[in-house]
Amino acid sequence: MADFTTLSNQELEKLKEDLLAQYQTFKSRGLNLDITRGKPCSEQLDLALDMLDCVNSSNYLTEEGTDGRNYGGLDGIPAAKKLFAEYLEVQPEELIIGGNSSLNLMHDAFMRAIVKGVSEDSPPWGKQGQIKFLCPSPGYDRHFFICEYLGIEMITVAMDDNGPDMSAVEKLVAEDESIKGIWCVPKYSNPTGAVYSDDVVERLAAMPTKADDFRIFWDNAYTVHYLEDRPAPLKNILEACKQAGHPERVFIFGSTSKVAFAGSGLAMIAGSAKNMDHAKKQIAFQTIGPDKLNQLRHTAFFRNMDGIRDHMQKQAAILKPKFDIVQSELEKALGGKNIAEWSQPKGGYFVSIDTLEGCAAEVIRMAEDAGVKLTPAGSTYPYMRDPSDRNIRIAPSFPPLADIASAMQLVGICIQLASIGKMIGD
Amino acid sequence: MADFTTLSNQELEKLKEDLLAQYQTFKSRGLNLDITRGKPCSEQLDLALDMLDCVNSSNYLTEEGTDGRNYGGLDGIPAAKKLFAEYLEVQPEELIIGGNSSLNLMHDAFMRAIVKGVSEDSPPWGKQGQIKFLCPSPGYDRHFFICEYLGIEMITVAMDDNGPDMSAVEKLVAEDESIKGIWCVPKYSNPTGAVYSDDVVERLAAMPTKADDFRIFWDNAYTVHYLEDRPAPLKNILEACKQAGHPERVFIFGSTSKVAFAGSGLAMIAGSAKNMDHAKKQIAFQTIGPDKLNQLRHTAFFRNMDGIRDHMQKQAAILKPKFDIVQSELEKALGGKNIAEWSQPKGGYFVSIDTLEGCAAEVIRMAEDAGVKLTPAGSTYPYMRDPSDRNIRIAPSFPPLADIASAMQLVGICIQLASIGKMIGD
Repeated sequence: MADFTTLSNQELEKLKEDLLAQYQTFKSRGLNLDITRGKPCSEQLDLALDMLDCVNSSNYLTEEGTDGRNYGGLDGIPAAKKLFAEYLEVQPEELIIGGNSSLNLMHDAFMRAIVKGVSEDSPPWGKQGQIKFLCPSPGYDRHFFICEYLGIEMITVAMDDNGPDMSAVEKLVAEDESIKGIWCVPKYSNPTGAVYSDDVVERLAAMPTKADDFRIFWDNAYTVHYLEDRPAPLKNILEACKQAGHPERVFIFGSTSKVAFAGSGLAMIAGSAKNMDHAKKQIAFQTIGPDKLNQLRHTAFFRNMDGIRDHMQKQAAILKPKFDIVQSELEKALGGKNIAEWSQPKGGYFVSIDTLEGCAAEVIRMAEDAGVKLTPAGSTYPYMRDPSDRNIRIAPSFPPLADIASAMQLVGICIQLASIGKMIGD
Repeated sequence: MADFTTLSNQELEKLKEDLLAQYQTFKSRGLNLDITRGKPCSEQLDLALDMLDCVNSSNYLTEEGTDGRNYGGLDGIPAAKKLFAEYLEVQPEELIIGGNSSLNLMHDAFMRAIVKGVSEDSPPWGKQGQIKFLCPSPGYDRHFFICEYLGIEMITVAMDDNGPDMSAVEKLVAEDESIKGIWCVPKYSNPTGAVYSDDVVERLAAMPTKADDFRIFWDNAYTVHYLEDRPAPLKNILEACKQAGHPERVFIFGSTSKVAFAGSGLAMIAGSAKNMDHAKKQIAFQTIGPDKLNQLRHTAFFRNMDGIRDHMQKQAAILKPKFDIVQSELEKALGGKNIAEWSQPKGGYFVSIDTLEGCAAEVIRMAEDAGVKLTPAGSTYPYMRDPSDRNIRIAPSFPPLADIASAMQLVGICIQLASIGKMIGD
């Protein structure tokens, strides 16, 4: 495993020839693999198959005797509110159950903020000139797409293993009233797998913000999605905000898309009772209520948090070997070569690779030419522009093990080739 | 059945005494009835019980083999698009399947129009100063609530048996660029039961509008909800708009809330392919897609339009006696007395009563005092203000027959008492 930076140009040329031959061999295999989407595989979905039977023609009433088939229940049936309040570590009155998509709840929270403002007494974001959002990056492309769509200027903030660069965040929000919020995926972050440290959570909660209507969009998408024995601890942001005297600062989002069924999960938004009361008043104009039968499926199938945690251990048993093979193949191909770094996530859905500067787009192009589709270059940064062209997001959940191995071998070859190209100026 | 207007004050006083005694008798019964909500009864919901069994742990794939449990399908699975395109009389590419609530789709269409504009090349409604909407009334309160919430000024337009007063509509939209649209419930209108005539549909499609970004919000909520042998014919608004050279003028909405399950139906939006493409591009920022399993439940259970029509005949068999008893009790109590008019709907969910001017609020108050909750006074008009205080909306679907009879008897008594009060100045 020679460190590429210690090799002569001649040695690199030689290596390149060898790698090109390997690349051609891959190409000739006619692969057609897709490792772009954080999408559960069938085996994961099968774990929840009983959810399709537990609500049926003889079981559709709530514990209170409410008919799950009829209208009503703006913020969720009591049993679902109880369970998912515990899931997001809030009180039931601090939670609203939505439809099947937490992205939908985030998007709608933006729309309400733009058209009506985030509280009774704050002006609509849409009436305050150009507003901005902080985007810790690498981050989640769909978060950034919402901002771009809505004309909200995105400011990139660096991410490290503990979360966003808080010194940068604190400085920016203290000075600029047009910065209205920050996107956060606090646990097993998409794509780096970072878990926010207590210090980061506390500073986010406590920092002075120039904007009174600043909001943290806390997308706790992977709260129980661990690959080890138990989930990583994460400090409770709502409690931290309350203690810091900013109880209304955070909107928390969660879903069971990657717990139950990806297309038919439950999504939820949480926050202070005041924030949720405000949201409920607005959501009452939008709907009579979400699908209660699907809430019943969740409470009947999972029953309680132990049920969810047991279920996630079964998920981990399927996912861990896939994440392990990404690690072992990357290590085999790139270990000690000093041309790439990658995350070793303890949960979540992604592995994040950083190549040498200026190589990521080339790697993704080469891989695609050889039949392996990777997340488009730049996706993990605002405006799809990775300033260093380094980051590649790997999503190993969906394909079978053998395909992941092949894909990662190819990615390893492509990273080496692109690196050599960069080093010898080819 | 003496015409009240022919009676002397003395005769009216005598009648009043008698009616007050009847009212007290009702009051002493301690009724607790609610005829406010257009909500299916359990027997109606039971008709679709098999929907809870037809998708199960061994049946969750689409016809194409797509896994209904996983992510994907922004605008619906092909079989659902095919069926509900026929349901709304459009082409599949002119339809988007949403979640469980058509109100949600209408609300969101407003939000998109306000924040982004109704098409690529039209400015956001939110950036055009004070905008206005035409509201044929009596109409649906939740439509009006959306406008009020969003600060859109509502202009009341009269309704008759053929739909809105088109001369008034044409004049208003021709002159005022700030009028951006009109709410319509074109078939078995809420609450009058009116079915728009061909002439009304054609004029809505063809009328010149000062605003280029004018939109008809066509809430075809009751398209197959007939009480007779077959649904009333309704001219196809999208076809009419295309023929008139205004293909983008209409957004059509529908749902199966009152076909399948009220809380777990399918909602849909339809319109020109150009409009739907534009909407899809925007909805892609909001969600990865709606619940496909619930679409599968619908296609597995109903199969085709014949299946839906057969199902609606069963619904009608439950609903018709309820609507009949409203008619017979109103006729018994008020027939020939010249103090009220009421609709005889051939479908939909409501009966609309017009009292003498200035009596509706009093009737609703008296009925509530005696244990019968009616839709709040003014609900069928913008800003909850019925200018003549005449309209009362009756929703007979949910309560059992005997309760409807009691409620209508009480309503009959209250209308007579309020009328006499009005006539003799008491």
